[in-house]
Amino acid sequence: MKVEKSHLVCLPGVPAEMKAMFEETVKPFLKSLAPAGTLIKSRVYRTTGIFESALNEKIADIFAGSTNPTIGVLAHKEGVDIRLTAKAESEAQADGLLDALGKTLTTRLPNHIYGLDQDGLETIVGKLLTTRSMSLSTAESCTGGLIAHRVTLVSGSSAYFPRGYVVYSNEAKEELLQVDPKVIKAKGAVSPEVAEALARQCRLLSKTDIGLSTTGIAGPTGGSPEKPVGLVYIGLADEQSVQVFKYQMFGDRAGIKFRTSQAALELVRRYCLGLPLRDGSEA
Amino acid sequence: MKVEKSHLVCLPGVPAEMKAMFEETVKPFLKSLAPAGTLIKSRVYRTTGIFESALNEKIADIFAGSTNPTIGVLAHKEGVDIRLTAKAESEAQADGLLDALGKTLTTRLPNHIYGLDQDGLETIVGKLLTTRSMSLSTAESCTGGLIAHRVTLVSGSSAYFPRGYVVYSNEAKEELLQVDPKVIKAKGAVSPEVAEALARQCRLLSKTDIGLSTTGIAGPTGGSPEKPVGLVYIGLADEQSVQVFKYQMFGDRAGIKFRTSQAALELVRRYCLGLPLRDGSEA
Repeated sequence: MKVEKSHLVCLPGVPAEMKAMFEETVKPFLKSLAPAGTLIKSRVYRTTGIFESALNEKIADIFAGSTNPTIGVLAHKEGVDIRLTAKAESEAQADGLLDALGKTLTTRLPNHIYGLDQDGLETIVGKLLTTRSMSLSTAESCTGGLIAHRVTLVSGSSAYFPRGYVVYSNEAKEELLQVDPKVIKAKGAVSPEVAEALARQCRLLSKTDIGLSTTGIAGPTGGSPEKPVGLVYIGLADEQSVQVFKYQMFGDRAGIKFRTSQAALELVRRYCLGLPLRDGSEA
Repeated sequence: MKVEKSHLVCLPGVPAEMKAMFEETVKPFLKSLAPAGTLIKSRVYRTTGIFESALNEKIADIFAGSTNPTIGVLAHKEGVDIRLTAKAESEAQADGLLDALGKTLTTRLPNHIYGLDQDGLETIVGKLLTTRSMSLSTAESCTGGLIAHRVTLVSGSSAYFPRGYVVYSNEAKEELLQVDPKVIKAKGAVSPEVAEALARQCRLLSKTDIGLSTTGIAGPTGGSPEKPVGLVYIGLADEQSVQVFKYQMFGDRAGIKFRTSQAALELVRRYCLGLPLRDGSEA
């Protein structure tokens, strides 16, 4: 493509002002640059629980073959976003193009797409819990309250989230959620056994449909060859059973906490939808 | 000032890459533009708990009279930052200029400056608790785990933060922290009485030096003329007593949660330092 002329737009750094100016001034200006009868529309499919490389493998042929919409892939701490951009003569035509390719993507990635555009996983989970009249409680060690914080960022979450426990010390795990001190001594606080006990007791004491637990090593200290920084166990309890999953998270302390919260919310999403909780291509 | 020549630097949008490129390439480039023997150095004094307008009143004369360092003021959700920028012939001379004006600022704002540059309030609070061998526990309603999350973002926080309660429902407040159901019925869950009971019981059950509680209306729904969205009570309990403070926070749900967490951590900072917990110019 030969670029005939370029425009450079400078915006202030204050986020709220920048966003408002973009919406009010820059967006209409950019639209005015497009030839009459041309429209560009984007849609983002948000995935989590899959590495960018594994995702690329699953959609490599679509990626290569698609010119309208075009496809772009971008990794965030929340997961990997797939952005489709369609050129069309009308909004309806653009939507048709996006819908068609979106359907193919959803078929290729049946378990990993959790939302569109700006959707947060906590919002999606909130809608699923609300629709199903289900409730959730949390028992957090390594995430330290972050899952509860994200769940309660959603307006109306008090309807499905009555309480959460932040059990940072062993004593708190034992006193508040009746984890057996012998189990902690034998297996360590970061163990599938402790994740299981936390999720089960949290659910029972909170009288919720789901109990969600985390225990792990957020770092940067506290790791060992057997239990490195980033090792995390997440437990999900329902009336029938408790399932525990092992993860090796990467990143700094804040990153490990966030990715653990994302993986935990993703388990709840899949549980609500009856999807396999993990399927082997997980990040 | 007449601008002879301007440079425009374009950097990529991925934050980590942008920051690395700035440090490695742009910063040395900018330094190279300064005339030989000229050095520009900045330092940020971070304040919280005071509105930008009230802060400006306290330092208006310094603001007007200072040319080296210059002063800039910027409001964030964390509070108001005061940035000093000195021009000097050497690093030592620049530090001397910054120290001198910084000392004046600290005298004018004896209670509000909590840190420098990138300091987070949770890090400052963590250092204070560590130095004093003091411990903290939390009982959060409207902040929903955010305070616990921020406290546990700091490496080593397990030494002073054993546990937190997220008591979103009335039943959780009653069951976990023995808040009297009659008090909740008579005064409402968002009341000084409930904040007081939460902080006291949280401290007792957790066996910590300090118990910190929040209850409020994070919105956007749930407000009333008597208890509008943004009304928050924060309780701080120690061995002697429980003090409860009333706030009217502004912003959306996420903003109200964050500002409440900031105000709560600021109470702990002031408590540790023996400062007045509030002094009348609070945001």
